[in-house]
Amino acid sequence: MEWGDSVTNKSVTERDFTVSCNGRSVPGVLWTPEAADSSTPLVLIGHGGSGHKREDHLVGLARRFVRHNGIAAATIDGPVHGDRKPEGIDDESIEERRRRFIGERVTDSMVEDWKATLDALQKLPEIGVGRVGYWGLSMGTMFGLPLVAAEPRIEVAVLGLMGTGVGKSSRLADDAAEVRCPVLFLQQWDDELIPRNASSKLFGAIASEDKRLHANPGLHSAIPREEFHNTQAFLAKHLG
Amino acid sequence: MEWGDSVTNKSVTERDFTVSCNGRSVPGVLWTPEAADSSTPLVLIGHGGSGHKREDHLVGLARRFVRHNGIAAATIDGPVHGDRKPEGIDDESIEERRRRFIGERVTDSMVEDWKATLDALQKLPEIGVGRVGYWGLSMGTMFGLPLVAAEPRIEVAVLGLMGTGVGKSSRLADDAAEVRCPVLFLQQWDDELIPRNASSKLFGAIASEDKRLHANPGLHSAIPREEFHNTQAFLAKHLG
Repeated sequence: MEWGDSVTNKSVTERDFTVSCNGRSVPGVLWTPEAADSSTPLVLIGHGGSGHKREDHLVGLARRFVRHNGIAAATIDGPVHGDRKPEGIDDESIEERRRRFIGERVTDSMVEDWKATLDALQKLPEIGVGRVGYWGLSMGTMFGLPLVAAEPRIEVAVLGLMGTGVGKSSRLADDAAEVRCPVLFLQQWDDELIPRNASSKLFGAIASEDKRLHANPGLHSAIPREEFHNTQAFLAKHLG
Repeated sequence: MEWGDSVTNKSVTERDFTVSCNGRSVPGVLWTPEAADSSTPLVLIGHGGSGHKREDHLVGLARRFVRHNGIAAATIDGPVHGDRKPEGIDDESIEERRRRFIGERVTDSMVEDWKATLDALQKLPEIGVGRVGYWGLSMGTMFGLPLVAAEPRIEVAVLGLMGTGVGKSSRLADDAAEVRCPVLFLQQWDDELIPRNASSKLFGAIASEDKRLHANPGLHSAIPREEFHNTQAFLAKHLG
């Protein structure tokens, strides 16, 4: 694990890091309480499609976890996103870009990247082996739900803005049947990208005894501000 | 309108009242801020089946509206409930009791009772013609959704724990198509009384542009405590 500079602002310490995983270099950011001791709870935050590890709303969320809840937070760039975006990819057509995401391999490698990140973070004295939660919507659920299904260290998750595949068998629906931890799932009622039926199905497929659905009006990215508060409170309650 | 004694406790004034409506005597309770002046916002609270106007969780909710939000609250007994329960009815079978509720007439008369109550309350100087919301689950939605559909003075509503009728045409689904105000709808995922499909359908039938669904785990009456907070905040935001 390699570290960038450490910057502390209003009691929140922020550090860039890089983790190696199967030959891949995975760039991330860690936010911790300035005075963290061992066994700080940790939230892994997965960004959405065409986003990156340092998007404004994720940085805000991460800082609020630290300041309000004493919970550390970490993000990593998804495949072909942020600092992992190859040069020239902006010239790709949507069709070409979509092809990069076909198949299980991208999901499996992102699950590996998150696991390697979690392994590395839990070796830090200021994180330690504490409780772990996950927060990720849209592409953050596309990769995050398989992570939650595969990673017993994750005890609670915020997911949503994603559906089962249409028609044929769906990896996400299969993985949802392996998710057992408490889940708060967000759905946008007028989502232009994810058919309402598909997101309802994915929520239905989650096997957790304690699963909650919040459906809100509006398009894919029109999540009401209070859901940031609600999802933060949901994770903090379970990790506290 | 007739009034019982006024009792003030921790800045909340509580009064029993009786309103006359088409020969029926409708008993209710009004909670107001001790120092209310005109145009206080008002929430009408409808109780659930086998409940009454003074159930603990409704009294708590009403008092919190007054103390935290400066919003007045009123409840009335539903037909054949509370002080409107005829003597000897406790000996009735469930089948006999169910028969009392068949047909549109009970719903129509309860809608009339609520309208007469609202008319009377808005003549009080400490209420006046302010903004009005509705909060009612289960039977409180069975009667309350038709009220919200028929009553343009109601600007926002909390509904839920109720579904469309099974098979034939459903009064509630028809009325839902007339509901246009912001709605927060609660659904219990493992509801033993209301099939999940039926409550999803009823939510789907609501015509409001701003409608939100919160689905939570558990049986019909296992609403998580935080939903009392969420529903209060939702109404207060719109009435404030």
